[in-house]
Amino acid sequence: MEPTLQFIRKIHSTLTTLEECPLQGNENAPEAVITIFPEFFEGVQHITEGSEIILLTWLHLADRTTLKCYPRNNRESPFVGVFSTRSPDRPNPIGIHPVKVLSISDTGSIKVSGLEVINQTPLIDIKPVWK
Amino acid sequence: MEPTLQFIRKIHSTLTTLEECPLQGNENAPEAVITIFPEFFEGVQHITEGSEIILLTWLHLADRTTLKCYPRNNRESPFVGVFSTRSPDRPNPIGIHPVKVLSISDTGSIKVSGLEVINQTPLIDIKPVWK
Repeated sequence: MEPTLQFIRKIHSTLTTLEECPLQGNENAPEAVITIFPEFFEGVQHITEGSEIILLTWLHLADRTTLKCYPRNNRESPFVGVFSTRSPDRPNPIGIHPVKVLSISDTGSIKVSGLEVINQTPLIDIKPVWK
Repeated sequence: MEPTLQFIRKIHSTLTTLEECPLQGNENAPEAVITIFPEFFEGVQHITEGSEIILLTWLHLADRTTLKCYPRNNRESPFVGVFSTRSPDRPNPIGIHPVKVLSISDTGSIKVSGLEVINQTPLIDIKPVWK
């Protein structure tokens, strides 16, 4: 009964190991490129260069059984419920990433600013930033 | 190969038809209550009253085949790709809702401020607000 996600594309990044990935996008994360699968291409029309968007990713390497963790992997922090943290290890490991569109090509390839996910992370949604 | 979501709980709201639901949480949406399923209860420990959190929901009544729409259902707006809108109709209908925790009980029942989703909408994640 519970739904299955559809991947709209994978992220192309120079980050190839989890150790290299910053904890957040504003911590010196590199630019990344998304090329939308053709069947979803219509959906990205009207995204414009310079706009701020939110990417939703599926953090496919996460441990979905984790319910408590140390925030920012700091063993001196209290051991807390994952829902009060941004740990990738959680029952539904969805990443939320506010980024800026640096460029967009006619073929649906979108280059975005600082994104902290590993290469080949699946993209599941794109939304405009809310105010 | 594509992953299946786990519902951590359903939302209890006085909104029982889609027509009643505001388009956004800050448009006079009512308070709502979440009671976490016991198997995920550990994960909500350390969420505190007064804190700002982001709820991720699965908008289960959405049309997952929609790729273009009129923003805010306004037929005078341009017909655009869903990824540049917040339409619930999209390939992976995940709702992102910044809300405030009004109260939290010992049994894991969390009352939150203005939430625009219909009663029984599944909750899939809770995260702290990012700055």
